[in-house]
Amino acid sequence: MMKKVLGIDIGGTSVKLAAIRENGEIFHQWDILTRGQDEGQAIVPDILASIDDFLAKNDFSIDDFLGIGIGTPGTIDRDQGTVVGAYNLNWKKVQPIRQSFQAHFPGIPVYLENDANVAALGEQWLGAGDKNPNMVLVTLGTGVGGGVIVNDQLVVGSGAAGEIGHMVANPDGFQCTCGNQGCLETVASASGIVQTAQARAKTADANSSLREQIKNGQAVTTKDIFQAAEAGDIFAESVVEECMGYLGHALGQIASVLNPDTIVIGGGVANAGDYLLDKVKAHYLPHVYPSVRTTTDLKIASLGNTAGVIGAGSLVIKNLME
Amino acid sequence: MMKKVLGIDIGGTSVKLAAIRENGEIFHQWDILTRGQDEGQAIVPDILASIDDFLAKNDFSIDDFLGIGIGTPGTIDRDQGTVVGAYNLNWKKVQPIRQSFQAHFPGIPVYLENDANVAALGEQWLGAGDKNPNMVLVTLGTGVGGGVIVNDQLVVGSGAAGEIGHMVANPDGFQCTCGNQGCLETVASASGIVQTAQARAKTADANSSLREQIKNGQAVTTKDIFQAAEAGDIFAESVVEECMGYLGHALGQIASVLNPDTIVIGGGVANAGDYLLDKVKAHYLPHVYPSVRTTTDLKIASLGNTAGVIGAGSLVIKNLME
Repeated sequence: MMKKVLGIDIGGTSVKLAAIRENGEIFHQWDILTRGQDEGQAIVPDILASIDDFLAKNDFSIDDFLGIGIGTPGTIDRDQGTVVGAYNLNWKKVQPIRQSFQAHFPGIPVYLENDANVAALGEQWLGAGDKNPNMVLVTLGTGVGGGVIVNDQLVVGSGAAGEIGHMVANPDGFQCTCGNQGCLETVASASGIVQTAQARAKTADANSSLREQIKNGQAVTTKDIFQAAEAGDIFAESVVEECMGYLGHALGQIASVLNPDTIVIGGGVANAGDYLLDKVKAHYLPHVYPSVRTTTDLKIASLGNTAGVIGAGSLVIKNLME
Repeated sequence: MMKKVLGIDIGGTSVKLAAIRENGEIFHQWDILTRGQDEGQAIVPDILASIDDFLAKNDFSIDDFLGIGIGTPGTIDRDQGTVVGAYNLNWKKVQPIRQSFQAHFPGIPVYLENDANVAALGEQWLGAGDKNPNMVLVTLGTGVGGGVIVNDQLVVGSGAAGEIGHMVANPDGFQCTCGNQGCLETVASASGIVQTAQARAKTADANSSLREQIKNGQAVTTKDIFQAAEAGDIFAESVVEECMGYLGHALGQIASVLNPDTIVIGGGVANAGDYLLDKVKAHYLPHVYPSVRTTTDLKIASLGNTAGVIGAGSLVIKNLME
C-alpha cells in the first residue's frame, strides 16, 4: 500500500483537509468551517475531531499516515511548531499547534508552515512549478503573497522572506497597510487593482463605461476591470496595463536575483488567465537580463485552491526524506 | 597539522592565489599577472607553474592540500568544470579548467565558481557576512555584480542568478551594455555614477566646482564625486543621493523577497564606506517591510580584494563537507 499523508490548509473562512498518497494523489478531500469566535479557540479541536471522523469512517488509524502537514496564516516558529499573529483566524496569542496535534495523535510527525509557502510547495510539486528546484509563487488575492523555493528548499530567511507584496513598486504610490508607500500589494492585489481604477477614474478622460460606473459610485471588482479591458474598454485597459506593469517589473527584479525556472502567478486575480499573463509578460520581458529572459518562465498557477493542502502534505514528505 | 586548501581568483589584470588553513587563515598569498594575449591560453599554465613553484619552495606536495577552489569571470558549467565567455580574460571558447588542473595534479578535487559568487562565499565565511546562512553580496565596481547565499548554499538558479546589476532601477534610464534600459549597473557602478554626474551636469543649476569640472570637459571619478559630496558640494550630493537611492531601493526589493541576515556592499565604490552606507540605508529603510527592516542589515564588505581567494578556498571545504 502506498504511503499516505494528511495536508491541512487553515484559512479565514474554511479549513481544507486532504488525505494524499505519497505520489501526490488526493484520495479524500473535505472542508470544515473556520470558527473564529472566542480567539479562534475552536479551530484546532474542530480539525482534530474532523480527522477522527474521517479516520473512523474509512477504517483508518492515524498510524496509517506518515505525518500531518499544516499551512496557516501568521508568523510560524518552525522549531516550536507554533504560530502567532494569524489575525484572520483571531489567533492573536501564540498557538501551540504542533503540541495540540501531538497530544491528540501521539508519535505522529507534525509540520507547520506559512500558508503562502505551502501553496508554493504545492504548485512546485504537482502544479505549474513542475517539480523544478527553483520556483517562485506570487499570489494575487486580497493581498499579494509569495513563496520562494531555492535549491528545492523553502526560503524563510530571518522569518519574513517571500514578502513579494511589500516590494515597493511605486515609491510615490498608495499608502500600504504595512505602513510603507507604494507596495506591490497596493496595485496588484484584488483591492489594489480596484483602488487604482478608482483613483484613475477621477482624472482619466477615456470614454469608458467602467469609468462611468466608478464615477457614479458603483462598486466594481477586479473581475469587472479585467473583463472590461478584454472587451476593449480603454480606461480598463489602462488600469490593467498600469497594475500588471508594476507586477511585471517586480517579477523581473526577482528573476534577475534568483533566475528560477518558473515564476508562478496564483490567487483569485490570476483567474484572468492568459490575458493577465500576456500583460505581465509584456512588462517582464523587456526588464530582465537576456540570459534570464530565456530561462525564467512566467506561468499561471494550475492547482487553484488545492495548492495549499497538497503543499502542506508535501511538507511531511520533504521533511521525512531529508 | 591543520588541513589546507588552495584558493585562486582569476581576474583580468592579475590572478590572486592563496594557501589557506581550514579555519580560513591565509598563510601564504601571492599574485601573478594575467596574460590575456592569444585568447588567454597562457593563463592556466602560468597558474599551474606558479603553484608548482610555491609547493617546491615551501617543501609541500599538492597532496598536502584538500583541493583547489577557483573563481573566474564568465559562465560556469559546474558539472563539467568549464567556463565560457570570460571576455576580460579573452576566453571566448569553452575552457576545460578542471580537466587542465586535474591533468597536472591528478586526484586533487577542483571546484570552479563565478567570481562574484566566490566573493560572496568569502565575505560570508570570514567577512561582513559573519557566517550567516542567508547573505547577499552586491559589488559596486566597473559593473555591479552579486552573489546570493540562501540556506548556506549559493543560488545559481538556471545559471544566471545574482544579476543584481541588471535589476531595472529606472525604466527610463540609461542604455545598459546588456541591451536593456536603466539597469542598476548604469547608475550604481563606478562608471554609472560618473555617467549620472555627466548627464545631470548639463541641467543642474547648483553652484558646484564638480559640475564646473565636468562642464569644462575634465574627467571625474566616482571617488571625486563622493569626496565632493562629503565636503558639501550640493551637485555631487544630489548625484550620490540619486545613485544610492536606486541602490537602496533595489536592495529593499531583494530584502523583501529573501530577508537575508545581511546584505553586504563591496567593490571599489564601497570604499566610500560609512558615508555611502548611510546614504543607501536612508533609501533602503523606508522601502522594506517592517519585520524585514529589523532583521536584514546592510554592511560594507570587510575583506577587500581577498574575498575572492578566501571564497574560492571555501568552495573546497563546503563541497567536501557536504
